[in-house]
Amino acid sequence: MTETPSGTPTTVSLPDGPALQQLMGHLNGSPGPRVVPGRSIPAPTSVSAAMQQAIAMPYRNNEWLLNPPDAAGWNAAIANLAQQSSPQIEKIVEKLDVRVESTTIAGVGVFIVTPPQIPAANANRLLVNTHGGGYLFNPGRASLLEPAVIAAACGITVIEVDYRMPPDHPFPAASDDAMAVWKAALQMAPPANIGLCGGSAGGGLALSTVLRAKNEGVALPAAVAVQTPWCDLAAVGDSLKVHEWVDNILVTYDAIAGRGASLYAGDEDISNPLLSPLRGEVSGFPPTMLISGTRDLLLSQVVLMHRKLRKAGVDADLHLVEGASHFTYFIDPFAPESQDIFAEMALFWDQHLGS
Amino acid sequence: MTETPSGTPTTVSLPDGPALQQLMGHLNGSPGPRVVPGRSIPAPTSVSAAMQQAIAMPYRNNEWLLNPPDAAGWNAAIANLAQQSSPQIEKIVEKLDVRVESTTIAGVGVFIVTPPQIPAANANRLLVNTHGGGYLFNPGRASLLEPAVIAAACGITVIEVDYRMPPDHPFPAASDDAMAVWKAALQMAPPANIGLCGGSAGGGLALSTVLRAKNEGVALPAAVAVQTPWCDLAAVGDSLKVHEWVDNILVTYDAIAGRGASLYAGDEDISNPLLSPLRGEVSGFPPTMLISGTRDLLLSQVVLMHRKLRKAGVDADLHLVEGASHFTYFIDPFAPESQDIFAEMALFWDQHLGS
Repeated sequence: MTETPSGTPTTVSLPDGPALQQLMGHLNGSPGPRVVPGRSIPAPTSVSAAMQQAIAMPYRNNEWLLNPPDAAGWNAAIANLAQQSSPQIEKIVEKLDVRVESTTIAGVGVFIVTPPQIPAANANRLLVNTHGGGYLFNPGRASLLEPAVIAAACGITVIEVDYRMPPDHPFPAASDDAMAVWKAALQMAPPANIGLCGGSAGGGLALSTVLRAKNEGVALPAAVAVQTPWCDLAAVGDSLKVHEWVDNILVTYDAIAGRGASLYAGDEDISNPLLSPLRGEVSGFPPTMLISGTRDLLLSQVVLMHRKLRKAGVDADLHLVEGASHFTYFIDPFAPESQDIFAEMALFWDQHLGS
Repeated sequence: MTETPSGTPTTVSLPDGPALQQLMGHLNGSPGPRVVPGRSIPAPTSVSAAMQQAIAMPYRNNEWLLNPPDAAGWNAAIANLAQQSSPQIEKIVEKLDVRVESTTIAGVGVFIVTPPQIPAANANRLLVNTHGGGYLFNPGRASLLEPAVIAAACGITVIEVDYRMPPDHPFPAASDDAMAVWKAALQMAPPANIGLCGGSAGGGLALSTVLRAKNEGVALPAAVAVQTPWCDLAAVGDSLKVHEWVDNILVTYDAIAGRGASLYAGDEDISNPLLSPLRGEVSGFPPTMLISGTRDLLLSQVVLMHRKLRKAGVDADLHLVEGASHFTYFIDPFAPESQDIFAEMALFWDQHLGS
């Protein structure tokens, strides 16, 4: 099945209009898999011009297709990608006017990101964020996109955990680092005033840090907000197929996401809830905000996590961004839809954190 | 473009694995529409066996492809479909053991659907539901699926509005009927104890009834729950394309949904918020629960409505069912995922209705 196709999916001759409908009705006329024709899907008109542009962005072929043969290759690729993304991230950090302090907490590298203005109600509040990047990418200052956007939008100081990553440091290094910083943060502000957040892989890490704190009898965050969290390292969720090739960030689970899962898990079974928090016991979780997008490859994982939290009686809210693939609202954090979802997050902290 | 295709979407030769990834990366290598290959998407393993079966169900070709040439043809098709669905609906009504009383309120045909047990807290609570069916289908007892499921799951009496529909009665007949019953319901229980709900077209009708009550100075419901509401009659929302051919109930907006929109609107502009509540002014809305599914053709409309309500400061909650197309949780209301979402609705009423 690897012969060169005579055409491309866009040039295959299909009938259109009523004839296509009849054909599809026939192909889907008995129980079984859903047969879907090749399509060209435009960026929707139901979003702002800025969000349309983010949705129309090409696949990031320098990232999702990466497949170096060995650890040295991975390290080079990770460093290269960090360097490529650096100018854009530094520009956003500057535009948002946040102050960035690089330091060490409990032996773990962190960035303390302070917004230009802190409302009085937020003076004694603190957020801890674990960045995304498939458990592989965004070391060092490449991790600053999320905390800069969140600090600026929410008016709260954010500690960004520059946790250790594969290939050199598979699980449990990242979990250990997040946990160490979490415990230290509990000495920096009243627990009732501290929120935990994280995006993508960092969203999974934030959720698993709550599971771990529960298990170890450590104080939980007062609230948790996760941005398109990667909740299960296995290929779990309908959207992995429905949004395959539609999501322009992750594209397909069989590429960088699957490789990140393997490299992060190392010798550990991916069914361990600290790797796949969707399999954890979530009763007693604090109020939790879950964000995803209607094109997110991980939408189903976010939805399944939301249902699981709700069934456990947790005050959990789901918010979706129209047309957004995985993380699109961080790709253009200034699009009106992105600003809306970060304003929602600011409100969430205000409602659930003590002051 | 209507020549017979030499193959079908499933037999087109595409490379797979790395070669397919390279091809797709190339085809999506510059800004523009998303190019997605033809696919066969299995029912997910992330849901119960019952929900898997509902997701794997064939298209309902006797419904979404309907296109009679005239009013008489529509009336015959609508009656025929009601007759076809009757045995299944009556079976569910019987299984749920609800009592159904057919009567008239304010000149409008209604069914009063009473659950077998009413918890003490619900004795003075009341729900008004406007059923789905594209503003075309489910007249008379064919409307009983929703109120039976909701009454049984929530333990609250439901008044189902058997509103007039096209082709004989286009807008504003349905809106007038819903409004007349809503006003009458306000005399049957304290407004603080009454919730308004509706599914699909009836979800749009429920939302537009709130808009109309606001405009006319009539008391609003204490809470609103809408099941995959049709919030805009125009082709609004990214999921209309992304979930085209994936949703096995509506399939595509260019078939029965679009025809229902035209027939319902009649001579009215579809941008009227009473037809397309997504265009309405929603400040002051009561707490609102919005339900959809990850394969719902209308997912984007539900998400856009949720964002609009949130931006207006409304206490609005979004809940999605994994793998569900438009209305799948009513197709098999006994699947665990359906029971979960109706339990969520029961909790919602309990939290927001007075007793």
